[in-house]
Amino acid sequence: MAVPGEVHWGRKVVAMCRWLAYSGSPVLIEDLLYKPENSLVVQSKHSRLGVETTNGDGFGVGWYGPRELPGIYHSAEPAWNDRNLQELSAQASARRVFAHIRASTGSAVQQTNCHPFRHGQWLWMHNGAIFEFPLVKRDLTLAVAPELFPLIQGSTDSELFFYLALTFGLEEDPPAAVARAVALIEETGRRHGVEHPIQMTVATTDGNTTWAFRYSSERSSRSLFHSTDVSTLRAQYPDHPLLHGLSDDTRLVVSEPLGDLQGAWREVPESSCLVVHDAGEELSAFVPG
Amino acid sequence: MAVPGEVHWGRKVVAMCRWLAYSGSPVLIEDLLYKPENSLVVQSKHSRLGVETTNGDGFGVGWYGPRELPGIYHSAEPAWNDRNLQELSAQASARRVFAHIRASTGSAVQQTNCHPFRHGQWLWMHNGAIFEFPLVKRDLTLAVAPELFPLIQGSTDSELFFYLALTFGLEEDPPAAVARAVALIEETGRRHGVEHPIQMTVATTDGNTTWAFRYSSERSSRSLFHSTDVSTLRAQYPDHPLLHGLSDDTRLVVSEPLGDLQGAWREVPESSCLVVHDAGEELSAFVPG
Amino acid sequence: MAVPGEVHWGRKVVAMCRWLAYSGSPVLIEDLLYKPENSLVVQSKHSRLGVETTNGDGFGVGWYGPRELPGIYHSAEPAWNDRNLQELSAQASARRVFAHIRASTGSAVQQTNCHPFRHGQWLWMHNGAIFEFPLVKRDLTLAVAPELFPLIQGSTDSELFFYLALTFGLEEDPPAAVARAVALIEETGRRHGVEHPIQMTVATTDGNTTWAFRYSSERSSRSLFHSTDVSTLRAQYPDHPLLHGLSDDTRLVVSEPLGDLQGAWREVPESSCLVVHDAGEELSAFVPG
Amino acid sequence: MAVPGEVHWGRKVVAMCRWLAYSGSPVLIEDLLYKPENSLVVQSKHSRLGVETTNGDGFGVGWYGPRELPGIYHSAEPAWNDRNLQELSAQASARRVFAHIRASTGSAVQQTNCHPFRHGQWLWMHNGAIFEFPLVKRDLTLAVAPELFPLIQGSTDSELFFYLALTFGLEEDPPAAVARAVALIEETGRRHGVEHPIQMTVATTDGNTTWAFRYSSERSSRSLFHSTDVSTLRAQYPDHPLLHGLSDDTRLVVSEPLGDLQGAWREVPESSCLVVHDAGEELSAFVPG
Repeated sequence: MAVPGEVHWGRKVVAMCRWLAYSGSPVLIEDLLYKPENSLVVQSKHSRLGVETTNGDGFGVGWYGPRELPGIYHSAEPAWNDRNLQELSAQASARRVFAHIRASTGSAVQQTNCHPFRHGQWLWMHNGAIFEFPLVKRDLTLAVAPELFPLIQGSTDSELFFYLALTFGLEEDPPAAVARAVALIEETGRRHGVEHPIQMTVATTDGNTTWAFRYSSERSSRSLFHSTDVSTLRAQYPDHPLLHGLSDDTRLVVSEPLGDLQGAWREVPESSCLVVHDAGEELSAFVPG
Repeated sequence: MAVPGEVHWGRKVVAMCRWLAYSGSPVLIEDLLYKPENSLVVQSKHSRLGVETTNGDGFGVGWYGPRELPGIYHSAEPAWNDRNLQELSAQASARRVFAHIRASTGSAVQQTNCHPFRHGQWLWMHNGAIFEFPLVKRDLTLAVAPELFPLIQGSTDSELFFYLALTFGLEEDPPAAVARAVALIEETGRRHGVEHPIQMTVATTDGNTTWAFRYSSERSSRSLFHSTDVSTLRAQYPDHPLLHGLSDDTRLVVSEPLGDLQGAWREVPESSCLVVHDAGEELSAFVPG
Repeated sequence: MAVPGEVHWGRKVVAMCRWLAYSGSPVLIEDLLYKPENSLVVQSKHSRLGVETTNGDGFGVGWYGPRELPGIYHSAEPAWNDRNLQELSAQASARRVFAHIRASTGSAVQQTNCHPFRHGQWLWMHNGAIFEFPLVKRDLTLAVAPELFPLIQGSTDSELFFYLALTFGLEEDPPAAVARAVALIEETGRRHGVEHPIQMTVATTDGNTTWAFRYSSERSSRSLFHSTDVSTLRAQYPDHPLLHGLSDDTRLVVSEPLGDLQGAWREVPESSCLVVHDAGEELSAFVPG
Repeated sequence: MAVPGEVHWGRKVVAMCRWLAYSGSPVLIEDLLYKPENSLVVQSKHSRLGVETTNGDGFGVGWYGPRELPGIYHSAEPAWNDRNLQELSAQASARRVFAHIRASTGSAVQQTNCHPFRHGQWLWMHNGAIFEFPLVKRDLTLAVAPELFPLIQGSTDSELFFYLALTFGLEEDPPAAVARAVALIEETGRRHGVEHPIQMTVATTDGNTTWAFRYSSERSSRSLFHSTDVSTLRAQYPDHPLLHGLSDDTRLVVSEPLGDLQGAWREVPESSCLVVHDAGEELSAFVPG
């Protein structure tokens, strides 16, 4: 019998992270993280009361504000207790926001292991795991471009995955680079006897476009949803006046629907890539290789 | 409908702390906090997976080791992630241990707000709340003995309760001092219009004797249990060789039974005080005043 | 022989905090805290190398950005190591900034003890001490208005001083309220046998005007300086293009001059109050009472 | 002109860590870290006042207590403010203690980057640097034994150095393993154009013997001292009754003499290895290779 929040993956039990990727009209980060009834931070609070299951092995927010490079806030404390996060969120507006709650699958709870990770103007966050990571970590580390290698700061599978994607050209062609990185992770895992080497929902952005991926070696991936148009959001938060002024291209991509109006969210299909840009979103198949 | 872990108290929803008070044969703290199937720290881990409900608004351990004064370890991080706590617990043995997981009801999550609190060789920990604390905090603060007042380090109701008990002679006659402190809290609360001013299970010790109290203004108090004799513990942890060498006076007092053998635990009755000393335990009625 | 950074006050050795209060053209906080050759944060880094003396018992920044209420960032870690502070500073612009490095004189190093303190839209920071604080803390605490009392979050003399000033009307007439608070602190201290009860430089603001006070019971107060006009700043940081666009009403008030051009700074005289508003600054005598 | 605490190494400025390695009669850790006039922690406090230069980019203690495996306490906060460290130190006695104050040369200030590092029953700490670490980190990482690679937890040069030594047989022949590791670091550095690739004082122990190394590629190494016999310590701390009961084989190896009686300390010569065991100490030349 599964308890909520555990995913039984083969014989593995994997804790779940959660994330959201916002793009569109500038919003106060507070309105995104704290105000919605089932926001990420509210979920982390509710988890304390036993309703939800995630909690605090670290929290991170990346946002594109007035400057070209995104800002990042990484916290190793439970998000709900973090007064600095509340203060920052109450002051900063952004047109693109990544937020991530971490449930550690083993690596240390420290700021350098918090998502989103950043390289130049790119952000990256991941829910899932490279399975049997200790078995494959060395081979994957060697595959990172030597000039990128010293930039790795933490010890997670997710950050290493990011650097593999960067090695394979993330900044030029994100879907192709992620496909090559996943192919390498699968080859490497299988060489070490791992049947299903990867499980992932990933979001990455250069500040102008967001790419979101849903994939797993077993073709039974974690959930991924997006709001189809801004009227979805307005319906979701009827009492939230700020959302009523959002532009039509405003979108949320989320690991799990926020709020009960689950019909208002469209599921990203298994093995696919969703691209969100100013003109709307596009969906394509995702095949490692 | 109540969710697990919430206590609907009147119209209040109060998060629950958890604590244990151990006394008896010297044990490695690790054996107490990490090894049992449903230990305090294991509960805090399971809470991450949604089985249990407590989690991390701070953790504290107080222990009587080789020296006269007890040691204290206070952490504002979730207990499960705290490597220093694991290290300390793996090295330190103690004949008397207090441990407490905090679920904040509002005050800041910081080390000075973690239980157990210490004064000289006394320790104190509390599960519950002084209700409408902002209303009564000033009056209660003024009632603390002037010479004790500057020693208050944090901002919790629980620490202030400790200093009231010290003011009323905790070090001479613990049950009388706690009774007077509770009477003052109830008088003060009612003067400010609070119908049921206090809810509590409290443990305090001088290193030789432990006093545990179960009381609430509404006479509907949080649970409190004790192991009746060491054979209870041995039955509880049949695979735990260390416990088999415990002396017969070894006792655990806990806010909630550890483990499924709940029949092995004896409930401390409503409005009573349990005294645990070398010769066994004694139960008496607890009446504020 | 005095070592740098110690102030021998009577027979007391008192560690020194440092602060700055900026007002004027909106600046990126990073430009204020990190870019100047001898900025507050640079001082905290240099202190590691033995040049300067302050360091890390906590850091705080308060800033007035796009919203009415100021934001606050409090850190119990050394400022130089704080990556979140760097990120926030690189993203947030403000027309008014308070920043403070704490050197604890005894109270715990925790976020609730970091300056600046906030009440509504007011900020407050203090360098100095209420001497023999444990002796007088209770009497001063009782003097705080009962409705303000429960808002005190930390355990410092500086925050209590703020709440005394609020009690005496800080929001209506800051110089008069601070004068009454200081008079009370001096009376209370002397009643307890403290010869020179207070030493202070204080800055407070409502977001539109900054009041800075220099005073000590012994009339031998810590230093306080202000930049007389923006050309001072431009001369101070000749290589800093951002400063060249500052409006003429831009001002810095600092506990110690930033940079070697000490002649460019005007000392605030002993026992005086400096008011900085859009139209420039005004100086008046400060007399407790 | 050099400021104290900087080492100008070629054109490099390198911050200095400090460490001590104690072995002998069981001591309370508090007596070692806090009580001596110029103890490591006292130095970290004095640094705040400008007398000394080290401070807080992390602190660590490893100790061999009642159990076979050593305990470790790692802190990313300044040592002087760390109440848990004070508590632990006041309770735990040990016959062998490693303590280390870190001054970061670039890597993140987090617990996984704190010394001493541990592998099984071995501890390792390092003062110095692998120069141009980003240039050589990848090649050195590849040289770590594949089965050890996933055990690396942090991002420092010092921990990687430890894993290289383990790869080369530290547990069997420490001087030979360290010599091979240093030879590899020097070869690798020179292949990347680094003239003087390493600067080091290192201490490592299996709990029974301590090996301390002083070496630098430039043959101008940081200082290293040891107490020649316990009478040195007794002279050093004449008022410290506990030290008067120490056995004759008690030894301290330190990066810098504690206390002013510097004549009481014997300098470990350039390019040498000091072995400290029950029967006393032995000195031998250290030659990489």
